[in-house]
Amino acid sequence: MTETDEAAERLTLMNAGIEAMIPVAHRMGVRIVELDRGRVVGRVEPAGNTNHIGTIYAGVLFTVAEILGGAIALATFDPARFYPTVRDVTIRFRRPARTTVHATAVLADDVIEAVAATAEAAGKADFALTAVLTDADGVVVATTEGSYQLRSHGT
Amino acid sequence: MTETDEAAERLTLMNAGIEAMIPVAHRMGVRIVELDRGRVVGRVEPAGNTNHIGTIYAGVLFTVAEILGGAIALATFDPARFYPTVRDVTIRFRRPARTTVHATAVLADDVIEAVAATAEAAGKADFALTAVLTDADGVVVATTEGSYQLRSHGT
Repeated sequence: MTETDEAAERLTLMNAGIEAMIPVAHRMGVRIVELDRGRVVGRVEPAGNTNHIGTIYAGVLFTVAEILGGAIALATFDPARFYPTVRDVTIRFRRPARTTVHATAVLADDVIEAVAATAEAAGKADFALTAVLTDADGVVVATTEGSYQLRSHGT
Repeated sequence: MTETDEAAERLTLMNAGIEAMIPVAHRMGVRIVELDRGRVVGRVEPAGNTNHIGTIYAGVLFTVAEILGGAIALATFDPARFYPTVRDVTIRFRRPARTTVHATAVLADDVIEAVAATAEAAGKADFALTAVLTDADGVVVATTEGSYQLRSHGT
């Protein structure tokens, strides 16, 4: 497979996984559209998700951001050995979201290495993840800061 | 009408309002089950809302808590003059939620009076709202702290 094929296959698998594991998020139309080690982008459309004034509901923006923590953990660390859990999330609403929203989260290489080393040694490791949510014009509509924990299976 | 009839009618109207105004929350089965001046309780069931390990998804717990800010504002202040908006919410996940979850939020009388006075004078007023989410055994599964703003229509 080419690199492009591999990337497409990773996305297909991740979105199928979300559909199976978190169907309520999949039903909102939340999709992962970019997925690499240390970088993930989610997307959600207004259709079916707006309130009476035409803006995407707070709980939907929360979901497209929160889900990145699990997705980036699975794409960055060894999913056969570790699974992610969420501890807390703060979401700040900046602007009304009326168009397609993309949520982007990144883990720097040094953070990845530190988290992997701690998880290896202790069986678990906390990591913080910031997500930035932008509308179709690139305007930041919300930001989130989440605390997640990577845990060894069986702990 | 008796007081009980009035309370039931308030709930019916509020849930019909949520269905019309935030259909995505209504589709999750989020319902307001108690609604009084200064006190509101929401409920959500696991059915359709769990993840692959049988616990209610984070975004659903967020929704049943976040929605209380709007509901309590509409029940406590004059909805003909003021509407609520959400600015930020922090949610802390404490325990897995595997059963029916109730989310409860309260505004003390002195807070209500201060918010009403500020909104009257300035056309808007911020208020903070804490919600406590408990499962069917009364165990706290999550808590939220939200910042909302009450605004005059037309501002």
